[in-house]
Amino acid sequence: MRKIYVLALVLLYAATMKAQVITSPDKNFTMKFSVNADGEPVYELSYKQKAIIKPSKLGIETKDVPSFLRGFTVTDTRQSTFDESWNPPMGEQKTIRNQYNELLVTLSQPAVDNRFIRIRFRIFNDGLGFRYEFPSQKNLNYFVIKEEHTEFALAGDHKTFWLPGDFDTQEYHTTTSKLSEVRGKMKNAITPNVSQKTFSPTGVQTPLMMKSSDGLYINIHEAALVDYSCMHLDLDDKNFVLKSFLTPDAVGDKGYMQAPTQSPWRTVIASDKAGDILTSKLVYNLNEPAKYKDLSWIKPVKYIGVWWEMITGKSTWAYTDTENIQLGVTDYSKLKPNGKHGATTAHVKEYIDFAAKHGFDAVLVEGWNVGWEDWFGKTKDYVFDFVTPYPDFDVKELQRYAASKNVKIIMHHETSGSVRNYERHLDTAYKFMVENGYNAVKSGYVGNIIPRGEHHYGQWLVNHYLYAVQKAADYKIMVNAHEAIRPTGLNRTYPNLMANESARGTEYESFGGNNPDHTTILPFTRQIGGPMDYTPGIFQTKISAYNPDNTSFVHTTLVKQLALYVTMYSPLQMAADLPETYNKHLDAFQFIKDVAVDWDDTWVIEAEPGDYITMARKAKGKNEWYVGAITDENPRVATITFNYLPKGKNFIATLYADGKDASYDKNPQSYAIRKIKVNSKTVLKQQLASSGGAAISIKEEVK
Amino acid sequence: MRKIYVLALVLLYAATMKAQVITSPDKNFTMKFSVNADGEPVYELSYKQKAIIKPSKLGIETKDVPSFLRGFTVTDTRQSTFDESWNPPMGEQKTIRNQYNELLVTLSQPAVDNRFIRIRFRIFNDGLGFRYEFPSQKNLNYFVIKEEHTEFALAGDHKTFWLPGDFDTQEYHTTTSKLSEVRGKMKNAITPNVSQKTFSPTGVQTPLMMKSSDGLYINIHEAALVDYSCMHLDLDDKNFVLKSFLTPDAVGDKGYMQAPTQSPWRTVIASDKAGDILTSKLVYNLNEPAKYKDLSWIKPVKYIGVWWEMITGKSTWAYTDTENIQLGVTDYSKLKPNGKHGATTAHVKEYIDFAAKHGFDAVLVEGWNVGWEDWFGKTKDYVFDFVTPYPDFDVKELQRYAASKNVKIIMHHETSGSVRNYERHLDTAYKFMVENGYNAVKSGYVGNIIPRGEHHYGQWLVNHYLYAVQKAADYKIMVNAHEAIRPTGLNRTYPNLMANESARGTEYESFGGNNPDHTTILPFTRQIGGPMDYTPGIFQTKISAYNPDNTSFVHTTLVKQLALYVTMYSPLQMAADLPETYNKHLDAFQFIKDVAVDWDDTWVIEAEPGDYITMARKAKGKNEWYVGAITDENPRVATITFNYLPKGKNFIATLYADGKDASYDKNPQSYAIRKIKVNSKTVLKQQLASSGGAAISIKEEVK
Repeated sequence: MRKIYVLALVLLYAATMKAQVITSPDKNFTMKFSVNADGEPVYELSYKQKAIIKPSKLGIETKDVPSFLRGFTVTDTRQSTFDESWNPPMGEQKTIRNQYNELLVTLSQPAVDNRFIRIRFRIFNDGLGFRYEFPSQKNLNYFVIKEEHTEFALAGDHKTFWLPGDFDTQEYHTTTSKLSEVRGKMKNAITPNVSQKTFSPTGVQTPLMMKSSDGLYINIHEAALVDYSCMHLDLDDKNFVLKSFLTPDAVGDKGYMQAPTQSPWRTVIASDKAGDILTSKLVYNLNEPAKYKDLSWIKPVKYIGVWWEMITGKSTWAYTDTENIQLGVTDYSKLKPNGKHGATTAHVKEYIDFAAKHGFDAVLVEGWNVGWEDWFGKTKDYVFDFVTPYPDFDVKELQRYAASKNVKIIMHHETSGSVRNYERHLDTAYKFMVENGYNAVKSGYVGNIIPRGEHHYGQWLVNHYLYAVQKAADYKIMVNAHEAIRPTGLNRTYPNLMANESARGTEYESFGGNNPDHTTILPFTRQIGGPMDYTPGIFQTKISAYNPDNTSFVHTTLVKQLALYVTMYSPLQMAADLPETYNKHLDAFQFIKDVAVDWDDTWVIEAEPGDYITMARKAKGKNEWYVGAITDENPRVATITFNYLPKGKNFIATLYADGKDASYDKNPQSYAIRKIKVNSKTVLKQQLASSGGAAISIKEEVK
Repeated sequence: MRKIYVLALVLLYAATMKAQVITSPDKNFTMKFSVNADGEPVYELSYKQKAIIKPSKLGIETKDVPSFLRGFTVTDTRQSTFDESWNPPMGEQKTIRNQYNELLVTLSQPAVDNRFIRIRFRIFNDGLGFRYEFPSQKNLNYFVIKEEHTEFALAGDHKTFWLPGDFDTQEYHTTTSKLSEVRGKMKNAITPNVSQKTFSPTGVQTPLMMKSSDGLYINIHEAALVDYSCMHLDLDDKNFVLKSFLTPDAVGDKGYMQAPTQSPWRTVIASDKAGDILTSKLVYNLNEPAKYKDLSWIKPVKYIGVWWEMITGKSTWAYTDTENIQLGVTDYSKLKPNGKHGATTAHVKEYIDFAAKHGFDAVLVEGWNVGWEDWFGKTKDYVFDFVTPYPDFDVKELQRYAASKNVKIIMHHETSGSVRNYERHLDTAYKFMVENGYNAVKSGYVGNIIPRGEHHYGQWLVNHYLYAVQKAADYKIMVNAHEAIRPTGLNRTYPNLMANESARGTEYESFGGNNPDHTTILPFTRQIGGPMDYTPGIFQTKISAYNPDNTSFVHTTLVKQLALYVTMYSPLQMAADLPETYNKHLDAFQFIKDVAVDWDDTWVIEAEPGDYITMARKAKGKNEWYVGAITDENPRVATITFNYLPKGKNFIATLYADGKDASYDKNPQSYAIRKIKVNSKTVLKQQLASSGGAAISIKEEVK
């Protein structure tokens, strides 16, 4: 008998040591999985023989049952391949290919009654996704996560584009530094926000974009974040190992789970070409197909809004200057209007007129409903009721007027972080929308979360945001959620989640400014998970023109604002500036009118995170192409190619260029517009100003 | 100028020192209010020249603005009187007199920009109520309460009937001890509960009942607890000073307030007659009149239920023995029934038949809906959906059947403490009730609260319970909430809040038993705030008769169970035992069938907390009287008078008495029934067994 035991041990040892290997369909990526001598799961990832992730441990630490950390043996492995193409209802390309090789490993813990979990790896031509799965079984039912211990051991001290890890905000400048410099730069990176909670001197957010010294571009994020807390990364800056750090709840726990269940996917996208990161659809491919049968009500939207005038301080969300409002008690008809309220019936009609005249689908109106006098920072529970307009906002008249002009009004639901209150009113609010002709809502989560102690990025809120989106679908309402969790490709599954903010948007140009390199980074970071409602289109770059007290200025040229409509993908695109300003620049405004918001295909012509991006896109179902080129504070010559145009044909391109003397800080409004002929062989050398850009619309030559 | 300042200071000093005095309409109570040298508000209360509350400080400590604790000067005082009578839609008496003298003191803090608060005192013939008021003013808007510092400085080391102070449960045995003994007895007093959180070795709950060595009965509680956290009392056991201790939220805060607002009323009821405590309506009088115009849909209910058989373990709430359920995922039709499910269509029909035969209004059915397999203790968020029946419970057929028998089914909503989930489903659940013929719901809050970190008795949940009651009113649904906050008279304002549990109910007779003195105390403690759904009527006192594994027994005689229908007031009264058992004792059951649940008037004949209670009540709108007499473990002779009967007339009384050899522990089911003639002069000496009782129904003699 002794011999048999020894043999069994040897076999077991062999089983635990034998690595499983899968490669991407194009063989560029190789992922190796094994279990080490302590029974810890370990994976590593390489790209063209270069290490992307060195051997890194996987595991979940639990609170109430034995942890899923060690003592594992591999009891089953299955490899499979998958290849399909799918068509998103809206997007950067008409068809997305979802092709991967899969390894599904079953890991048992003999010391825990043979309890088992699975880790599923999917390796694509653009990177790796993996997740933990907890199948239904006798010895596993409920468990509470104390921490997820997923490691990403990096191969070097990469250049990194990072935001401070925070449980409540992503509205930070991106800091660009080596990994070894994160700790030293953290203090400056943490700028004030009305709700924020950092957790570590080396904590950073995902999507995390990096570049190795040997020219590899690496992006780490997650996909399909559903009913789980958001993953941050804590950096071991001696060994360059990133470790998952989940957002805790009010009592410090990090996840409440019931088998069968699974974690979100952890994703590593990599390439030696920066542009490949921008066109990666890995995160979407790791999400489930659309849950709704009928998608006909979900449509791209180009919109303007009663919004920038409040952001700049020209007008106000609030109807009065009273600072103490109790909904249902305060009688607004007895309060003195402050004379600066933006969302008045007459003023909204002006926006509707402008939208109708220039072909916009919709007008966003913020500050239409009672409660804005003391809406955040008060830990106030019942802040808004989402259905009661201010006395000077006539819902029915505006419904009639907008419909007569074939323009939609976009509803605004600011929750002020008070999500119990929002959920209590959600059905009533959505019904009110349907009854009054609204089919899209911008929601907001400014301020600390109520229930108190919960965070914007914890499981509680992650659950809430999706609840609000799913319930909106019951009413055929499209959602654009601000200050919500950063996207993880869930708009594939729930396509009425049109866009999110979840980063420093254009509003910060009025709050001191965004860095000139900001929009050359966002497509590599924030937008890896989904569309951003960045709200470009600011032509009046000096905010003091609207509000003498506001010394902020937009940190781009006017033309760069145009280019953003191409480089910052969203099916929901705003022209954020005021009609009065657009009326002064109708020639430049023409580009915003023309540019598509939904695309057949997308090409990255040039890109370097933090420096520049030049992209071309073909309008969905039309023979129209749009090019956007942007640069950071450094002027540069963009080399714009046109090889994506059908060969052998000529096209008319309208070029919106920075003026020769343009620069974001001294002469941002200088621009020149000219028409040129282009074909697939054209190569255009185009000068971009400091934080400048170029925008091109291309149409077939009419003979 | 110097002189004037001195004069002003003297005047100020005089103002702060001059005590304000008010007395009760009958002059028995005197309350004195002053501000001490530190500017702290101080009150004291006496009854017939005996001190009830010695000088005690008042104040609120805040977190974010200067506290409301000291530096006060009295800037205004107003006295007024009030006297009205009102008729509750249901109750212990037809008409309630609300007569008090009021002192309203305005207190300013010169050092805090003359910020001011008010303290409103109302002094009744049965005691004192006072509250803090925070009027609307320029220098006061939002504030966060760190702690309320209301003191009740007692005049001695009183005998006290107390429960351990706890943020999550009141389901403790009452411990009877001197105040000085609380600390020593605390450890034994804290028995296990599925959700509990004690806070101090001398922390106790309200309503707190005490008796002084010179024979004063004193009760401390609160009234109109709305959007504020529940007050516990922490005892300084050297000085016998009780100090308010509010329930904290998940982050340790105790209240989020916005002016104008107010605290609940703090109440002190006192008398030299124990019975006066039982008949006090002070708590109700401090609540607002009914908020609903139409009360016609709110009616008393006598009911039976598919409940005790699950409590005893004879049958189960759950349909299967599977332990891992995911709503919307689990397919019950594929699971094996456990064969012990109580709420089957056929079985519920048997209950409906029994209810119809014996004149009950309704049948409570628990365990009808999916999810009971793993319903608590799992921190499970989505536990129940409140609308999906088990496969063996036919909602439509039971609606039809119950309606054909003129019996209502009472809905059951167990939330498992997951209040977000309940609120998300509330509208759907109430609509489902209306559509299926239900007009009353028993709700439950077993287990730890979700959102995690919140407590059953914090402001978050206090807000929720009332939200559920108010929303129920939109659907004309009556509510009986278990494990919710103990009542504070809110059923005056929201009369569809029919009853609460909020104490150790009859269910504990199956979980090891209640003390024989339990129901001689509850009317002095728990029921000061409102009706209790105690669910009496257990005839089969040996639980093993239903479940051989259950060794518990009911700690009363059968007759005491009858008497509880009189001594434990509720407009919602259950006959909790099984029809099969009642069928064996139809003679005794007759009392339950006869007894009223709504009353014209109530008389306490004899009472001593912890020892005995004898009460008589006149049925609402009928010439019928019911008497209940109970005793603790000590047999006694009750002296039952009948002077509340109309004079000069004879009546037939049916007396349900303990058998001569009866005792709760040895021979509980021994009883004797006889008819006697009584008139207003009759005095009946009636022997009560150990934890026994007597019940009498009195009707006019038919000639």
